[in-house]
Amino acid sequence: MNIKEKFGQKVKMLREEKNISIEHLANISNVDRNYISDIEKGKRNVSIEIMEKIICAFETDFTTFFNDKNFKK
Amino acid sequence: MNIKEKFGQKVKMLREEKNISIEHLANISNVDRNYISDIEKGKRNVSIEIMEKIICAFETDFTTFFNDKNFKK
Repeated sequence: MNIKEKFGQKVKMLREEKNISIEHLANISNVDRNYISDIEKGKRNVSIEIMEKIICAFETDFTTFFNDKNFKK
Repeated sequence: MNIKEKFGQKVKMLREEKNISIEHLANISNVDRNYISDIEKGKRNVSIEIMEKIICAFETDFTTFFNDKNFKK
């Protein structure tokens, strides 16, 4: 799995854990819903500003988001 | 400090800790030296793939890189 896929998988996992739709995540993060759908599929080379919008929408932070075995060597 | 500045500051700190030049970091990460210079100044909205190149060049991982008070809420 490449880094875009790992990021997308984590976004999808958090979204499903919180039981929110892509549309709702799009609204609270202010990121387009089609873009979020592509991110979850690992298709987007997301920028750090977009990452921040999504991570903030989940009410978490970069430290917590990346504290996950998929982001360890 | 915004997220681009926080990222740039961390890159610069790690580079200085490891005592390597921007030019050397550019060579080992395969990212243009001017681009790295801009990243350190917080001027670039870096993509996750560029982040990965730099983080790998430091022989670390996303979990460790973001485990820093600047990336916590």
